Amino acid sequence: MQENLFSVRMRASKNGPHEQGGKHISGGEHISTYGNLKNAVNDLLEKALSHSRGNPDFMQIQFELINDPIKSLRPLHTGTNTVVSVDEGQTVARKLLEESGVPRESIQKAYEQVAEYSELRGAILVDVSSGVRMDDRSNRGVRVSRMDWRAANFAKWADHYKIPRGQKVKEALTLATKVSAHPATVAELCWSDDPEYTTGYVASKKLGYQRITNLKDYGDERGCRIFFVDGLSDLQSYIRYLEKQPIFVQWREENDARIN
Amino acid sequence: MQENLFSVRMRASKNGPHEQGGKHISGGEHISTYGNLKNAVNDLLEKALSHSRGNPDFMQIQFELINDPIKSLRPLHTGTNTVVSVDEGQTVARKLLEESGVPRESIQKAYEQVAEYSELRGAILVDVSSGVRMDDRSNRGVRVSRMDWRAANFAKWADHYKIPRGQKVKEALTLATKVSAHPATVAELCWSDDPEYTTGYVASKKLGYQRITNLKDYGDERGCRIFFVDGLSDLQSYIRYLEKQPIFVQWREENDARIN
Repeated sequence: MQENLFSVRMRASKNGPHEQGGKHISGGEHISTYGNLKNAVNDLLEKALSHSRGNPDFMQIQFELINDPIKSLRPLHTGTNTVVSVDEGQTVARKLLEESGVPRESIQKAYEQVAEYSELRGAILVDVSSGVRMDDRSNRGVRVSRMDWRAANFAKWADHYKIPRGQKVKEALTLATKVSAHPATVAELCWSDDPEYTTGYVASKKLGYQRITNLKDYGDERGCRIFFVDGLSDLQSYIRYLEKQPIFVQWREENDARIN
Repeated sequence: MQENLFSVRMRASKNGPHEQGGKHISGGEHISTYGNLKNAVNDLLEKALSHSRGNPDFMQIQFELINDPIKSLRPLHTGTNTVVSVDEGQTVARKLLEESGVPRESIQKAYEQVAEYSELRGAILVDVSSGVRMDDRSNRGVRVSRMDWRAANFAKWADHYKIPRGQKVKEALTLATKVSAHPATVAELCWSDDPEYTTGYVASKKLGYQRITNLKDYGDERGCRIFFVDGLSDLQSYIRYLEKQPIFVQWREENDARIN
């Protein structure tokens, strides 16, 4: 019998809970065994209490048993695009989105909405052909949940590719891998709402996870997370996948070797 | 300026969250400074993961800033009624309720409902003159929240009265003190849903906190928490007091000395 696994999630905000208009401070996800729940909770608690967006005055951590089978996904291939300015970074981002299959007009339209949605804690879904927002989650957005990448496996991956073993990279690549694995996802555009973190990325099945070293000014608390989606017959089942389908990112050296 | 204080609360259940019909396992409350939040969260997490009602598969811990001024309440005076059987214990309980001002017929009526509400995680409110349940919280009951008793002060109190420094006593007396302090509360009847804990109590302004050493059989998971309430012009404001008014139990030796 397989060991029970639990989805552990945290959200923290300031000036009240999110649903009462509080400012989003931090969120986080783990998938944990019962025996490791204390570590998982404390890891997320530490994250909530030490975020550079500020000290939260509301936080919620919950765990719940995962009943669905957990899918295993290989991490996206990664690349780094070193740029010297935000402008250059954003130009690269647009180019990568276009190469991933997002029409230029839709990219332009999505960018016009970026400022408006920069305070959301979740992602917005944008139709790839019209550039119009498709989800109905107004001030909240869609939060991708039930995903993790075991530390030991991540460390092996990071060492192999000579990438520093940072939490940010692990979390971002886990999310991008889950999102990208759905057939309806064409591309993702993301930069953090952490004022101290200016790196962002474009991710897609075609290009993998393309880190861009500068997508916003240092100190800027406005984040961005847009999923460009195509051919969505069933928006609710897509959102259900993002929110509920449990996945582990799992890297195997052999697999990557075979491809390269 | 006074230091910010946070209400920290936990609830844990099995076979899903409470709101989806899960079995209540454990709940808990703290009032904490920001600096002590990690301890408070871990204390409640430990409680959730080690309860004799079983291992939870759902748990939620949250903290939020308390904006209202915190009331300080003196602990109820305590007495212990040693009994040799559940029957004797229940007879004592009924007698103490009657002495507290609950008519015998209402006690009888309330007891007829005890089995029905033994799976609730919160309390039920019973009208003292009719014996009829008054709250509208069906399967949930009313959960008393935002209360604590600082460990050092509790220890002083416990040592003074030669009472073991147990968590159960601290939690029960904190709750009973808060409930009893409201003018509309006539009496409380309580025994734990912890199968290993057979002691219960009757509490009232008149008699204080009267522990009764045996109110149910060992191994029995059915608990009871009834507040007998009188002259309630505004049920919602009474429930708001129980759920939202923050209180600290605070004992001062001088106060008790002056009274005795």
